[in-house]
Amino acid sequence: MLEIPTNSREVTPDVFAERCPANYLLGKIGGKWNLLVLDFLGRGPCRNGRLLRAIEGISQKMLTQTLRDLEALRLVQRHDLQTVPPNVQYELSGLGHSLREKVCALDRWVEEHMFEMIEDNAAVPVKRL
Amino acid sequence: MLEIPTNSREVTPDVFAERCPANYLLGKIGGKWNLLVLDFLGRGPCRNGRLLRAIEGISQKMLTQTLRDLEALRLVQRHDLQTVPPNVQYELSGLGHSLREKVCALDRWVEEHMFEMIEDNAAVPVKRL
Repeated sequence: MLEIPTNSREVTPDVFAERCPANYLLGKIGGKWNLLVLDFLGRGPCRNGRLLRAIEGISQKMLTQTLRDLEALRLVQRHDLQTVPPNVQYELSGLGHSLREKVCALDRWVEEHMFEMIEDNAAVPVKRL
Repeated sequence: MLEIPTNSREVTPDVFAERCPANYLLGKIGGKWNLLVLDFLGRGPCRNGRLLRAIEGISQKMLTQTLRDLEALRLVQRHDLQTVPPNVQYELSGLGHSLREKVCALDRWVEEHMFEMIEDNAAVPVKRL
């Protein structure tokens, strides 16, 4: 349970402090699956099935949980088009788009620098083909 | 096990692809503890005890594992000053500093926007004091 004063302005956000919502939120937003879903959804609204195919290795259970978490934090919006068969779309909110900029900067950095981290590195399980 | 061609230039980095090292690395870097350690270490070299106090809620076991992971990826350097009593310091490498810029942008965003995510939000366990 996070405890914060009624007057939000009394809180100094501090991601290192256990009781600060920022610390809790970083735990909810950080993590590979959240970062990947935020990144991919920035390309436009999309359905569960497309996310499941695009984000390789994610299970349906994990995708559902990730989307629920991001929706609960107002980063993702869920649109049920109320059709038969069901058509549910997910898209980033304005807040989600704002966060995605930072997430994409991180994701692109990892792509750009991956060889510096793994080249001739016995600690990384890479097999050369 | 990641499989990549001997000629690295043949690889198009893609964080969404399960076999791409970028996907594996995002999993190693993207969690809360890694993000917090990278963020804090940017303030300067520091010892285990200081990190343990600064990053509230991290266990010694988790801190040790996080530092080992980041060291294995060449993001953190470990300096054993070979003294009695032992004095071991950790600091970011050049690559670590480069990554930290992106991590800090994410951490500061979370701090700046935390109230937009939690205000009047039943999904977040906040107690008003």
